[in-house]
Amino acid sequence: MSLLKRRGMIFPAFSIHGGVAGLFDYGPVGGRLLRKVQQEWREHWLSKGNIVEIDSPTITPDSVLAASGHISAFNDHASECNACNAIFRSDHLVEEFHQNPDSLSGPDLDAILTTNNVACPSCKESDWLASRPMNLMFGTRIGATRGGRQAYMRPETAQGMFLTYPMIQRHFRNRLPFGAIQVGKGYRNEISPRQGMIRQREFNMAELEYFIDPETDASHDFTKWDGIEFNLIPDPAGGQQNETKMGISAALNENIIRHPTVAFFMAETFDFLINIGANPEKIRFRQHESDEMAHYATDCWDLEMLGSYGWIECVGIAHRGCYDLGAHEEATNSKELRAWREFAEPIEIDKEVAAAVGAVIGPAFRQQAGLVTQALSELNDLPSAFPFDLNLSDGTTVSIEENMVEIKRVQETIRGEWFLPHVVEPAFGLDRIIWHILDHGYEMTEKEGEEYLILHLTESVAPYEVVVLPLFEKDGMDEVANQIQRDLLKLNGIGVYYDGSKSIGRRYARADEIGVPWAITVDHTTIEDGTVTIRRRDDQLQIRISQDDLAQHLQNGTLGSLY
Amino acid sequence: MSLLKRRGMIFPAFSIHGGVAGLFDYGPVGGRLLRKVQQEWREHWLSKGNIVEIDSPTITPDSVLAASGHISAFNDHASECNACNAIFRSDHLVEEFHQNPDSLSGPDLDAILTTNNVACPSCKESDWLASRPMNLMFGTRIGATRGGRQAYMRPETAQGMFLTYPMIQRHFRNRLPFGAIQVGKGYRNEISPRQGMIRQREFNMAELEYFIDPETDASHDFTKWDGIEFNLIPDPAGGQQNETKMGISAALNENIIRHPTVAFFMAETFDFLINIGANPEKIRFRQHESDEMAHYATDCWDLEMLGSYGWIECVGIAHRGCYDLGAHEEATNSKELRAWREFAEPIEIDKEVAAAVGAVIGPAFRQQAGLVTQALSELNDLPSAFPFDLNLSDGTTVSIEENMVEIKRVQETIRGEWFLPHVVEPAFGLDRIIWHILDHGYEMTEKEGEEYLILHLTESVAPYEVVVLPLFEKDGMDEVANQIQRDLLKLNGIGVYYDGSKSIGRRYARADEIGVPWAITVDHTTIEDGTVTIRRRDDQLQIRISQDDLAQHLQNGTLGSLY
Repeated sequence: MSLLKRRGMIFPAFSIHGGVAGLFDYGPVGGRLLRKVQQEWREHWLSKGNIVEIDSPTITPDSVLAASGHISAFNDHASECNACNAIFRSDHLVEEFHQNPDSLSGPDLDAILTTNNVACPSCKESDWLASRPMNLMFGTRIGATRGGRQAYMRPETAQGMFLTYPMIQRHFRNRLPFGAIQVGKGYRNEISPRQGMIRQREFNMAELEYFIDPETDASHDFTKWDGIEFNLIPDPAGGQQNETKMGISAALNENIIRHPTVAFFMAETFDFLINIGANPEKIRFRQHESDEMAHYATDCWDLEMLGSYGWIECVGIAHRGCYDLGAHEEATNSKELRAWREFAEPIEIDKEVAAAVGAVIGPAFRQQAGLVTQALSELNDLPSAFPFDLNLSDGTTVSIEENMVEIKRVQETIRGEWFLPHVVEPAFGLDRIIWHILDHGYEMTEKEGEEYLILHLTESVAPYEVVVLPLFEKDGMDEVANQIQRDLLKLNGIGVYYDGSKSIGRRYARADEIGVPWAITVDHTTIEDGTVTIRRRDDQLQIRISQDDLAQHLQNGTLGSLY
Repeated sequence: MSLLKRRGMIFPAFSIHGGVAGLFDYGPVGGRLLRKVQQEWREHWLSKGNIVEIDSPTITPDSVLAASGHISAFNDHASECNACNAIFRSDHLVEEFHQNPDSLSGPDLDAILTTNNVACPSCKESDWLASRPMNLMFGTRIGATRGGRQAYMRPETAQGMFLTYPMIQRHFRNRLPFGAIQVGKGYRNEISPRQGMIRQREFNMAELEYFIDPETDASHDFTKWDGIEFNLIPDPAGGQQNETKMGISAALNENIIRHPTVAFFMAETFDFLINIGANPEKIRFRQHESDEMAHYATDCWDLEMLGSYGWIECVGIAHRGCYDLGAHEEATNSKELRAWREFAEPIEIDKEVAAAVGAVIGPAFRQQAGLVTQALSELNDLPSAFPFDLNLSDGTTVSIEENMVEIKRVQETIRGEWFLPHVVEPAFGLDRIIWHILDHGYEMTEKEGEEYLILHLTESVAPYEVVVLPLFEKDGMDEVANQIQRDLLKLNGIGVYYDGSKSIGRRYARADEIGVPWAITVDHTTIEDGTVTIRRRDDQLQIRISQDDLAQHLQNGTLGSLY
């Protein structure tokens, strides 16, 4: 963290105003790293061809979050010390006494606190009030005047994809499977933020909701991952007790991974992380046990990355069934959250219907007669008695007498049905991933008897692709270096900075510390013949090439081929 | 707006839950348009070489916004109808009676309401209570437990750059000028949102803070804009009464634009908008009049774009002096918000100082003796009387007697000074810009006697670069089209979709409506010889080329050269 602060990567936000726990800035170097990780993530999914990106508001009205379950269930338990009134997350207090404390109920947490005489971290007494659930959403009100509407900062980006499902479905002309992604801020009003970047109050999320027809066999090609062994920790309830290494197809065939689309997204997520520089040995998948998983989920895997905080959940990949669309359908009566499934063969059925008798309905309901006729035609079952109440599409209810309808036998052809798609959701915590990419790339080595740091970042996420250094800021070397910087900046998407302060060794070291893959040096020979030296961060080898070749190879990403 | 909704560009958010005024979604087509505009904006500034990107939290503690002035001054006046209690923005109520109503004070607004008998839009009475200022920030609290801290959702991204100034300055090794950008959400709790996308409660901002030394002549090369006439509406106080067309250098030389860096950013902003497809005839710059401008600003121009709502402010370019950094310095006593200016020649000065007498200070202050000696050495002026109070760096104050110091004459060399940089800020409302890009690109034409819509978007921002269409979904044409889609998706950053539903004419029309520049059609000839037809949106001309050439030209952006 001290390196990250010193080199302008990431630092506690608002520090000149005293700081706020759980809020961080990405600085002049970290800002571009964050953008590049976001961009790589986007391209990874958008290049599948049946996935689109949306962008929805972070301010979310209460009715949405009541339907999604966040108002009732987005809680942590908090315990208050009866002696000093300090408040802590209950699961943090008991974590040395239980393997998975955030799955515990309030009474279970209280029992562990009491049985083990857990001491208050503030005053060392052990006298706890009963734990209480605390909602973790940031509340606000929409409308600057009285009578505003209760709202919250979104706890996840996922609701945006569920609520725009009608447009996504229309965009793909109802052809499942399809998905939508969203990259943006999520908010969680932590009781006591800790672990720096790992547990923030405002964080960068990236989520994908992939909509599938549960009755269609998911077809995924897993040959790409043949020969790759994944680190898996399956739910012990499945019979497999320990961490294991296994191919993705094998895990699916043995029903350890319970759905092919879940397996597909696990493997694709692995690929994404390797592409941005994660160490495959420091990635594992841990399956949720049934008491850990939301009741509606049928399979759920955490991708964990190993770093200075141990194994940390960085991605969750969950099969959420039709829970989310179903919850919004129930709350809103919207008819737009379904997909159409055509039957292989149309079904012909005979059924009895209560058909409207126009001569009675007309005079009885006048302007509403059309609505009554329509509502009768949409009844699924015959009325069990008369009179009965009939709900019309204008929201009113009318009473239907026996003489208003005629029971008829009709034949109907049913070509298909509307159903709630199922959802597989990979949800990424980008700040945690960035933390681990930095951790995995960090190599403390030695140079001339002193510690020397190299940050091995892939070109795809390095904050700058290249630094331009004049050997000295004199004899025209600085002007040439400035000109090379300007020329290279014209290349699309290439980040280039100029560094002229202090010795050339110090400047190489500064570039290595922030992971710049290539350093261009302008020296006396450059002034004579226009060539520059190129130094590769990872092995510090230098070669000399012309400025034209430099631009060409940088643009094509082929500088490495010269070595 | 109806096209935007229908085609998945932009639509009112949370609509299945009844909607919330002033909140919008970017849908499956609009999401990528937004991202591409953001990406173009970033690259435009980052390619200058002395500008970096940062990313800071949207949740902002109250002390920051008290220092910036937003808690006291981020208001609109609201008027309440005494008859029906409806509340409206006062400036909206009087806009037909004043040219620039949002510059008016509360009493002035009340006077106009009364004099003109302005009717309440709800109940048509004309009986207004005195207008009141309403703060427009969304409030929230940090900390899920009691004793949380008051905070607000940021009203602008700019504060992030001021607060991270110490890291930005360190990154650039104190070499002014330099700048930082931020792209992200801003929030404004409008009293009564209207005008759709133009006035949102949560919006996409993009701001640049450019830090300069006010004593260094700004050097900008304006030759790039020679021959370009800008539409300017100068402050009438400067003598120029009407809209005028003028080169940027001329406007600067005639002191209509009051600072070269303001002129530079006006011209660069113009370039950015043209590159993403704005119509230059529908862009003008309007200079703020002195009563419209914040008291600390020395020059301020609104870039306005013409569209269906008339001329709308889309960018503000302001010279903000040292107001922002100075306000945070005053609020926090931070010493990190300044830059160092070395004098051309060091200054030698003779001065009298009150030097500590160690033999007296030591016994008198013991452990604090060092701090006292230091504080005495930092005094700028000799004490005017004894004893006097001296503030130490540990926050305590001590009393200094006459015998504790010795008045000495010393010579000092001053090599430079710390000063507050000035700031020039271009602030962009991206949603408004996108609205106008769509407006400027919208062409309603005719085809076979029916209305036909073409959306002329530049490739740099078009939501998809290309659509792949099988002439029919049979005879293998759909498989080939799907394969072409997959192949093209491997090209970096190219968005490609497949469309197989309905007639080919309908599908061309749908692509033209959302601004897809190129349509690839797979027909029977494709099956025979592998060639495809390429149709250009803007003139609907078709050519036939091989699939290999297609990929090559798409990647290089050179498809147009084939025509």
